[in-house]
Amino acid sequence: MVERREILDNPGSDRIRKVAGLSRRSARLRSGLTRVEGPQAVTELLHCAPQGAVTDLYVTEAGAATRPELLEFAQSTVSAGGLHIHTVSPQVEKALSDAAQGWIAVARFEAFPSVTGSPEGSLALILPATQDPGNVGTLIRLADACGASTVFMGQDCADATSPKVIRASVGSVFHVPTPRFQDLAAVVKALRSEGWTIVGTSLSGDVMLTPVTAGTWSNKKVAWVMGNEAHGLDATEESWCDVLVSIPMFGRAESLNVTSAATLCLWMSAVAQRM
Amino acid sequence: MVERREILDNPGSDRIRKVAGLSRRSARLRSGLTRVEGPQAVTELLHCAPQGAVTDLYVTEAGAATRPELLEFAQSTVSAGGLHIHTVSPQVEKALSDAAQGWIAVARFEAFPSVTGSPEGSLALILPATQDPGNVGTLIRLADACGASTVFMGQDCADATSPKVIRASVGSVFHVPTPRFQDLAAVVKALRSEGWTIVGTSLSGDVMLTPVTAGTWSNKKVAWVMGNEAHGLDATEESWCDVLVSIPMFGRAESLNVTSAATLCLWMSAVAQRM
Repeated sequence: MVERREILDNPGSDRIRKVAGLSRRSARLRSGLTRVEGPQAVTELLHCAPQGAVTDLYVTEAGAATRPELLEFAQSTVSAGGLHIHTVSPQVEKALSDAAQGWIAVARFEAFPSVTGSPEGSLALILPATQDPGNVGTLIRLADACGASTVFMGQDCADATSPKVIRASVGSVFHVPTPRFQDLAAVVKALRSEGWTIVGTSLSGDVMLTPVTAGTWSNKKVAWVMGNEAHGLDATEESWCDVLVSIPMFGRAESLNVTSAATLCLWMSAVAQRM
Repeated sequence: MVERREILDNPGSDRIRKVAGLSRRSARLRSGLTRVEGPQAVTELLHCAPQGAVTDLYVTEAGAATRPELLEFAQSTVSAGGLHIHTVSPQVEKALSDAAQGWIAVARFEAFPSVTGSPEGSLALILPATQDPGNVGTLIRLADACGASTVFMGQDCADATSPKVIRASVGSVFHVPTPRFQDLAAVVKALRSEGWTIVGTSLSGDVMLTPVTAGTWSNKKVAWVMGNEAHGLDATEESWCDVLVSIPMFGRAESLNVTSAATLCLWMSAVAQRM
C-alpha cells in the first residue's frame, strides 16, 4: 500500500523502460514476464492467475477512479503475496501502452493456464500460422466464447504472451491454454488417435457449412484448423483434415477473413454440440 | 502509356504528397477523391467503377511483375478514358501506403455505388457508430459476403471513403452502397414502413440466435443494427429494433467483438433466407 502514495512519473526510469521493453519477444523470453493492458484483461488476469504470478500493477489516478472495485480487488490480493501496486502519471502510462485505459500489469508466464495430457471437452482450435497479433487475440477470445478447451499454436503464430495478443483476447488468454508446438503434425496425429475429428476450411471444401452439416458433429470431438490470413491452409495442413468445409457466401466478396470464418465454424459446431 | 516509361521516384513531389494527403478526411471531401490500396481492392475498383471514375494508378515494378494480368486490364481501360498509369519507386509507394503490395489507385467518389430509393433484397446492415476503420471495412466485406444490399452508416462511423476502410473491405465498398445519414432514426422508420424487420443484438436480448430462430426470418426482409465496438447499442438504438437477439456463448469470454457478432447474425439470416 505504501507504494500508492508516491506517483511514478518518470517514463525514462529503468523500471518503466523494462516494462515497456516487454513488447519485444526476446525480452519476454529472457525475463519470463509479460505486460497486460486494459482494465478487462487485468481483471481476468487477477482473477485467474495463480498466487504470486502477478508482480506489479501500474494504475493512473484516472484509471483508479474509473474502476474503484478493481483497485479494491487488487489491493485485497496484495497481502496474499507478491503484488506491488504503483500509481503512475499519464506520461508513464503512455510510455507503456497506447490503449491501457489506465491499467497495466506485469505478470509471470505462470499466469497463463497450462495444459497437461490430452485436451478436455469437445471443441479445440489449431492455428498453424496466424501472424497478426490482433487476429490471434481475437481467435483466442472466440475460442473462449465458444467453450473450446485449447488453442494449439504453431511456431509461425504471433506469440500468445505478446501484449497485443493479450489485449485483443480481452483476457481470454488467461482462460484457455494456448500451447505452442514445433511439430503441429504430431499434435494432430495424437488428437486423431484420441478420437478427435480434424476439420479445416477451404474455398473448394467438399462439405458446405450449414446447420445440417454442423449437426453431424453434435456428438463428436471437433478440432478446427484455421489457416494463415493471406494464404489459408497449405497442402500439408489440408492433409491433416478429416473434412474440408466450405462456407456458403451469397454476394460478390470472394472470401471471409480468418476471424469471420473461424467465428462461423467454431460457433456452429458449439451450438450443434451443446444446444 | 507514355507515363509508364518514366519512374516517379520523388516521395516529396507535389503529386505524391497530394495522394498521401488523402488519408485526411478533409482532403478527401475537398477534392472528391480517395486512395485505394492493394491489388485486390484495385481490381474491384477497376471492374466496378463507372468510366472515368479512376483517375490514376501508381504501380511499382515489383507490383506489376506480380500481377501482370491486372496491369493489362488497367491498360485496356486507359483508352476508355481518363486513367493515367504511373510507375513508381518503392520509396514513393512507401510514402503513400504501408500495405499496398505495389498497387495504389486514386478514384473519384463516383467510384462508390450509390443507392436510390429503397434497398433491394432481403438483408441490410445498419451501423450507427462503428468507429474503427478496420472494423467498418471488415463489416462491409462481411455484408457483401452475405449478400446484403446496403450498409447504412451514421455520422459517428469511420468514413467509408477512408483508405483504411477501403483496404479492410478488400474492395467490397465498390460492390455494396454505404450511404451515410445524419438521421438514422428516419432511415429505420422508412425501412420499417417498407416491411423490413429491424433486429439488434444485446447481451440481454430476449430471443436467442440459433438455427431455429434464424429460420423464422427466412421469408422476411431483415436489417441488422450493430452497435459501437465499446458500448454496443445504446437505449435509442435498441428502441429502433423489433427484436433484440442474444448470441449463445459457452465459455468464459463475456462477449464477442462486433465483427464476430455481426458475422453470426448476418450469415445465419442469409443462410435461412437462401438455403
